[in-house]
Amino acid sequence: MNINKNYAKLKENYLFSEISQRVKTYSEKYPDREILKMGIGDVTLPLAPTVIEAMRSAVEEMGDADTFRGYGPEQGYPFLRESICEYYRSFGVSLDADEIFVSDGAKSDLGNILDLFDQNNTVLIPDPVYPVYADTNIMAGRKIIYLSANESNGFLPMPEEKMRADIIYICSPNNPTGAAYSTEQLKEWVHYAQKQGAVILYDAAYESFVGEQGIARSIYQIEEAKECAIEFCSFSKTAGFTGTRCGYTVVPFALKRCGVSLRSMWLRRQTTKFNGVSFIVQRGAAAAFSEKGRKQISENLSVYRDNAQIICNALRKLGIWYTGGENSPYVWLKCPMFSDSFMFFDYLLEKSGIVGTPGSGFGKNGEGFFRLTAFADKNTVQRAMEKFTKIFV
Amino acid sequence: MNINKNYAKLKENYLFSEISQRVKTYSEKYPDREILKMGIGDVTLPLAPTVIEAMRSAVEEMGDADTFRGYGPEQGYPFLRESICEYYRSFGVSLDADEIFVSDGAKSDLGNILDLFDQNNTVLIPDPVYPVYADTNIMAGRKIIYLSANESNGFLPMPEEKMRADIIYICSPNNPTGAAYSTEQLKEWVHYAQKQGAVILYDAAYESFVGEQGIARSIYQIEEAKECAIEFCSFSKTAGFTGTRCGYTVVPFALKRCGVSLRSMWLRRQTTKFNGVSFIVQRGAAAAFSEKGRKQISENLSVYRDNAQIICNALRKLGIWYTGGENSPYVWLKCPMFSDSFMFFDYLLEKSGIVGTPGSGFGKNGEGFFRLTAFADKNTVQRAMEKFTKIFV
Repeated sequence: MNINKNYAKLKENYLFSEISQRVKTYSEKYPDREILKMGIGDVTLPLAPTVIEAMRSAVEEMGDADTFRGYGPEQGYPFLRESICEYYRSFGVSLDADEIFVSDGAKSDLGNILDLFDQNNTVLIPDPVYPVYADTNIMAGRKIIYLSANESNGFLPMPEEKMRADIIYICSPNNPTGAAYSTEQLKEWVHYAQKQGAVILYDAAYESFVGEQGIARSIYQIEEAKECAIEFCSFSKTAGFTGTRCGYTVVPFALKRCGVSLRSMWLRRQTTKFNGVSFIVQRGAAAAFSEKGRKQISENLSVYRDNAQIICNALRKLGIWYTGGENSPYVWLKCPMFSDSFMFFDYLLEKSGIVGTPGSGFGKNGEGFFRLTAFADKNTVQRAMEKFTKIFV
Repeated sequence: MNINKNYAKLKENYLFSEISQRVKTYSEKYPDREILKMGIGDVTLPLAPTVIEAMRSAVEEMGDADTFRGYGPEQGYPFLRESICEYYRSFGVSLDADEIFVSDGAKSDLGNILDLFDQNNTVLIPDPVYPVYADTNIMAGRKIIYLSANESNGFLPMPEEKMRADIIYICSPNNPTGAAYSTEQLKEWVHYAQKQGAVILYDAAYESFVGEQGIARSIYQIEEAKECAIEFCSFSKTAGFTGTRCGYTVVPFALKRCGVSLRSMWLRRQTTKFNGVSFIVQRGAAAAFSEKGRKQISENLSVYRDNAQIICNALRKLGIWYTGGENSPYVWLKCPMFSDSFMFFDYLLEKSGIVGTPGSGFGKNGEGFFRLTAFADKNTVQRAMEKFTKIFV
């Protein structure tokens, strides 16, 4: 018996446990001081009324013999996959419902998709980045090349012809930096992937925050992308489903490698190692993408967008360099006064009670930067940025 | 770019699509004849009232800002893991809540658990069997040894000292045969695994059908099993959750291989490639294991158990060899008059409208056998077995 020895190469990810430990110490030291949470990327607004209504009926259906549902299709109910197609059509992308795979969330699919690829592929990952991209490849023993995202490229690195890569991760709008590629920039990435014969794993989890013309909502806004990209998306940030769990992955019919359809492989993977998403949750997700649902969820998104603006405005006035916040719930700022992001974290917490996330937790290039999230309620964000301003003015 | 070439070694699983094709042809030929569905292992009774009530409240909680829940713990909410512990205690097994991992279903976990093991392990799989055990290992390129389950060993093969194995699959009560190991028999398996340094992957999805003293509910009824076994279970058959999606996997603290805790590895796997189960579903699952819930779900189980008895009684009177049906919703019978299970399928369908599953779909040793499931409603099962009796009397 041999275990998978690659697990030994993983570094423990202490980031959020380290943060909560420091916050705990702070609140024991100052039990009366308010803590302003702008650290974790979790939504706070309740599910939209239409979603709740749909889930209410679905629960009742499951309690009645005439309407009860057993196993559903592994790929997701057609009613939901059709809603997702229509959502894509709303920003000009045409997909076939059979190219869409419904799952319990983008995190699962981003990990599980790697089943399709050989161990001997080279993986290109930007730094800083959502830690899951690297960890899932370390688990499989793949070679990783990190691509430097930094202040000079606005945390939007572009491909270099000399780089060799088989699997390319792109997250746009980005976690943690909030920076978002334009469709023009993505064209270059698609072109590069096609030349390399690589596959792009495109994480679009934050696409619903894009408000600016010319910024990509989907990699399939670039036509050739269907031949080289898999897109991952989620209801988590779009419709507040972080605790409800539903996502979707698009694997186009046109995507082939070594003469094999990756869609067929993914279908085989999902029918073998997955059994579909709860009917109740799928009903809720479909309601979120109904006409009424889209109106309601866009109201929630506006709240978070306004919060991001409050953060950006404060930083702009202070002359602090930042990116994100425009098409993203994340604002990524250069730490004022500190080059060590954990020292900045401590200083900010001590002075104001604001909890953010030290950039070094997302990779080497995150050092000296800091992530603030726009998911708290408006009052909290306003109070936080007033305090922030008083410190750094 | 190389794809995972092991996928090319998979055989397409045409079993259930082949069956539905033949049923379609039949119903086009005889549009007025009734079809008696006893083929697929899916439940038909609605969720228990307590489960519905819990999910109703959970939906309301998600629609209210004060009670809304975002990301939950990847391993599952403590309230559910505690309920599962209590359920295990009800049949004498003591577990720590931190040894339990809640998931979207046993099928996912049975596939994903293989991440923890090296490719160069030898896998022992009984034949006939749930096809997923073999397919998930073929996908990873592992060597598989099949263990013959047959009429002479009552479809309950026992270990042979000379067999080398690193990973051992046991499904009891079995799918498709319905045969169930006694705790005495499982002791031998645990002893064998310990001697081999192997890990048993124990699929207990049908444990709630066990009614007979001495038949195992859990492999942990054998004490040493915590040092060599991972147990997979599900609310699917126990509480009718096939379309609601919730399962759980037990990885004991005592289970170590190559000096590494498999529980720590699984925790790392799940926190990296999974984000927990819907709060609403977890509330429903916990309600199923409440005192009231357990009473209600046992009423549903009784309906299926009674159906199984109707099937068994008919076969006994006809003198047809069978196994299962006692501690299982599956009855596995030797095809009368036919040695080819698909020919028997066609004959039975043509003569009676009964749809079962040909044993050859579950492996070489399934040839000549046939699976009937007890999940239809009582009237259907009664009518079916009356027709069956008239043909084979």
